[in-house]
Amino acid sequence: MPSKKLRVLPLGGLGEIGKNMTVIEFDGKIVVVDTGLMFPTAEMHGIDLVLPDFSYLRDRADDIEAIVLTHGHEDHVGALPYVLREIGEPPVIYGGLLTIGMVRSKLDEHKLSDAKLQELPAGETVQRGPFKLELVHLAHSIPDMRGVLITTEVGSMLMTGDYKFDQTPVDGRPADIPRLAEIGRDGLLLLCGDSTNADRPGVAPSESSVGPALLRQFSQCKGRIIVTSFASNIHRVQQVIDAAVELDRKVALVGRSMRKNFNIASNLGIAKAPQGIFIQPREIENFPDEKVVVISTGSQGEPLSALRRMANNDHRDVQLHSGDTVVFSATPVPGNERAVNETIDRIYEIGATVITAKDAPIHASGHGWQEEIKLMLNLTKPRYVMPVHGDHKRLRLHAELAEAVGVDSKNIFRGRNGLPLEVDGRGAGFGEDIHAGTMYVDGVNIGDPDDAALRDRREISADGIFIVVVTISNDDGSVVADPEVIFRGVAFLEEADALVDQLSDLVEDQLEDAAKAGTREPQVIEEDLHDAVGKFVFQKLKRRPMILPVVIEV
Amino acid sequence: MPSKKLRVLPLGGLGEIGKNMTVIEFDGKIVVVDTGLMFPTAEMHGIDLVLPDFSYLRDRADDIEAIVLTHGHEDHVGALPYVLREIGEPPVIYGGLLTIGMVRSKLDEHKLSDAKLQELPAGETVQRGPFKLELVHLAHSIPDMRGVLITTEVGSMLMTGDYKFDQTPVDGRPADIPRLAEIGRDGLLLLCGDSTNADRPGVAPSESSVGPALLRQFSQCKGRIIVTSFASNIHRVQQVIDAAVELDRKVALVGRSMRKNFNIASNLGIAKAPQGIFIQPREIENFPDEKVVVISTGSQGEPLSALRRMANNDHRDVQLHSGDTVVFSATPVPGNERAVNETIDRIYEIGATVITAKDAPIHASGHGWQEEIKLMLNLTKPRYVMPVHGDHKRLRLHAELAEAVGVDSKNIFRGRNGLPLEVDGRGAGFGEDIHAGTMYVDGVNIGDPDDAALRDRREISADGIFIVVVTISNDDGSVVADPEVIFRGVAFLEEADALVDQLSDLVEDQLEDAAKAGTREPQVIEEDLHDAVGKFVFQKLKRRPMILPVVIEV
Repeated sequence: MPSKKLRVLPLGGLGEIGKNMTVIEFDGKIVVVDTGLMFPTAEMHGIDLVLPDFSYLRDRADDIEAIVLTHGHEDHVGALPYVLREIGEPPVIYGGLLTIGMVRSKLDEHKLSDAKLQELPAGETVQRGPFKLELVHLAHSIPDMRGVLITTEVGSMLMTGDYKFDQTPVDGRPADIPRLAEIGRDGLLLLCGDSTNADRPGVAPSESSVGPALLRQFSQCKGRIIVTSFASNIHRVQQVIDAAVELDRKVALVGRSMRKNFNIASNLGIAKAPQGIFIQPREIENFPDEKVVVISTGSQGEPLSALRRMANNDHRDVQLHSGDTVVFSATPVPGNERAVNETIDRIYEIGATVITAKDAPIHASGHGWQEEIKLMLNLTKPRYVMPVHGDHKRLRLHAELAEAVGVDSKNIFRGRNGLPLEVDGRGAGFGEDIHAGTMYVDGVNIGDPDDAALRDRREISADGIFIVVVTISNDDGSVVADPEVIFRGVAFLEEADALVDQLSDLVEDQLEDAAKAGTREPQVIEEDLHDAVGKFVFQKLKRRPMILPVVIEV
Repeated sequence: MPSKKLRVLPLGGLGEIGKNMTVIEFDGKIVVVDTGLMFPTAEMHGIDLVLPDFSYLRDRADDIEAIVLTHGHEDHVGALPYVLREIGEPPVIYGGLLTIGMVRSKLDEHKLSDAKLQELPAGETVQRGPFKLELVHLAHSIPDMRGVLITTEVGSMLMTGDYKFDQTPVDGRPADIPRLAEIGRDGLLLLCGDSTNADRPGVAPSESSVGPALLRQFSQCKGRIIVTSFASNIHRVQQVIDAAVELDRKVALVGRSMRKNFNIASNLGIAKAPQGIFIQPREIENFPDEKVVVISTGSQGEPLSALRRMANNDHRDVQLHSGDTVVFSATPVPGNERAVNETIDRIYEIGATVITAKDAPIHASGHGWQEEIKLMLNLTKPRYVMPVHGDHKRLRLHAELAEAVGVDSKNIFRGRNGLPLEVDGRGAGFGEDIHAGTMYVDGVNIGDPDDAALRDRREISADGIFIVVVTISNDDGSVVADPEVIFRGVAFLEEADALVDQLSDLVEDQLEDAAKAGTREPQVIEEDLHDAVGKFVFQKLKRRPMILPVVIEV
């Protein structure tokens, strides 16, 4: 019998920053909130993207009533194309206006144009199976951010998504506090709230405080201004454009996602720019330096981004030079510090000036700080709390904040990916763990991080590979050609030829021994060769490259 | 005729943080100041260490009068064993007492026990060829830090090494300001000063402010305390021990370098601990939690360090648990942020508490801040200034500080590795660039970063490798065995068998074509196979793995 408990199964986003995805179940039916991804680290050789392992949904595809997206950031929507491919008949996908616009563009690129995307205006409700769904307007570093209120017959839960209580957002639409208060008054069973800034005391600065700070910095620049920020932060880009207008400078949008996102937002009426303000990147050189603002991707030091190319003197349209000022209107996402610092230092090497959020208040986080997390808890008055969207540290700090505002500590659940929380009017507790891990996108394939390909890459990338080809007769197992020893990625220089000769001798000895012993099976010969060559190489090089013996029978 | 100019050739440390090494030349003779290394990034597959390219010294080995080491940190002494191996007959090596003690231990491990190590007490001078050498006592995050004053007949120069003007250092020996003032009064031709904290306004906190802050934190801990810091920061370790004594806790030193450095310092009388305070790591479990302080390596999240193992539940003697407090008495070196954050989050996952320098003033940098850099400039009154030890940003900021205290901007030189500054009483200017790059230590080998091994590793680590073995007859070029197609590190799953079959067919077709065309040279066949297989694999997988064809003739 399908469970009459509300079951909340995080597939990603707990104990990590990124790939947020939560499965909500009731009475055998499912709503999925967010389908996010993470970007790979340098240790994930050649991996393109990191996804939550959503194989749980594969067998339950028919039960999915809806996918609801809180906002258009990659860590909340980036896995959607892969999820849709996996679950066949696509369920309806709800979100705010910009979210739907951005996701439509993404799905088109993935040739998934038949997805059923539907804007759900904030405050309206829709019934899908046993779930009543409502989006609640909140503020974040991208427009049209929405919390998701899910009501079932045993009660309601709120997934906040990413939010801040910005009292002066750029679009004049602060978080819908009245509605949150109503939700609290009506009785909320469970709150799953963003933990990203649970370690920062106080209240996040308003997004609209950034514009004047940018204008102050810009007005002191005598040469070109190159601003980098997240392309999805439409209000930030808007404020840069406004400052450029104020200072009578032209604006060039550089970088594919910068142009794409601004176009989408502009077409939806979310971003606005006066006629004639924009110039094409290739026109930049036609204008005096003091008349140009470039808005560029690359605030995270991404290897192929426009700004990284500029820093490497490798951008077609923008050659940085002394007199330019590069403004980082963003802070490094944890893990990107090195890439960002390298980019900054290359810009210094060129002789341009750099301004970061350490030098002036030209960035504001999109995630509420501690007082905002407490406000969310106080407004919605949840009986149960499960912090989400954070590493272990931030989940714990969020739990402490919940306790600080009076939530009973036994009603606060510190969950993890794959561990379902089961809630109804009588109580709450964790259910049975399911497998929840990580999947890697690697070219056109989606795979397991433990798969052989990545393991092999790790091994070879550390110490290289030796390939030993031996050719033996089908008739009597005798050696019919000199062994070939080939290596790649192995560090040894002058002594290479001598070592290869010694290895060839070793291989020949091995084969002779095998022949004498009557060993004929290629597999046994390969194993013996593997061990003998590996041992010899380690003695000589103190390294353990991959050893790959190949026995050819002719 | 040997130059009668003082020639200062940085081989490392400019435009980067680490591998500090400078060659000072006069009248055909050489003094080397510091021989540092850097640690590799994750992108440097399998590389163990990064050294300055010191091949310049190879041809000049006979001219080296001395190597002078400012202090015992790896970024100042770590390349010494490799330099000594390269230059044959070892020159005399000077440094402070602890520096010599630490280097002796390092060289013993490298079986270089015949090195001529010699303590040069601060204030004493020694004449080596045309150079008069004197060490000037300064303060840093390791005891016995010394600036190097080098006097020739055209004038003097000072290499500061790493320093701060700590007025209350733990050993009661602040930087020798009187001597620096004398140097300034007598006329200093050139100052090469540390730029590490040229971006921080003000004065660095004193090392001795850390002890009371640690004691305050410790006194609030009810369970075990695990402190991590740099093993070489003897005064920090001393202050942790002092706090433990105060609170009647035993101390266990965990991690090889922690034990080694403390022993060296203790034997030299630089560190002191009361009898009976120490317990062995394996004894920790025998004492009540509230009676133990563990001092551990791993403050940078190093993969094999003691603390990282503890965080991974993989340390033999210390199993972290709820109630433990882990105190990071260090900040991440730029680039190590991710590793440190991962370590911290794993500790949170276990349920232990973490205190970092963000939470309490439990760390002090060993590098002077802006006001200290200005003080150094004002005391020594150099005619010429070349900032060292810093990335491009910090070198530029240091140059700006020099201008701010009145050094003529045309006398401030923003150098780079490999660019010699030539100075005498009449003027200063850059000489001819020499090649100055990077060498990698890779197992037992030292190589060039551009060498084929690393290039191959990068290629294979991104997309894997395909090996195609074909066997043809020596007589007529006919194919005498089925082609073998082997792959490693290539991401493709279900379709692997089919693809290998298709590839085998493709290879057979290629060989038939080659036979028809009369192509017999293995090299030509290999090239054709390489191109055909590469093209086919890219079509199928959208990936460019390494393709390695092997033609065997029988």
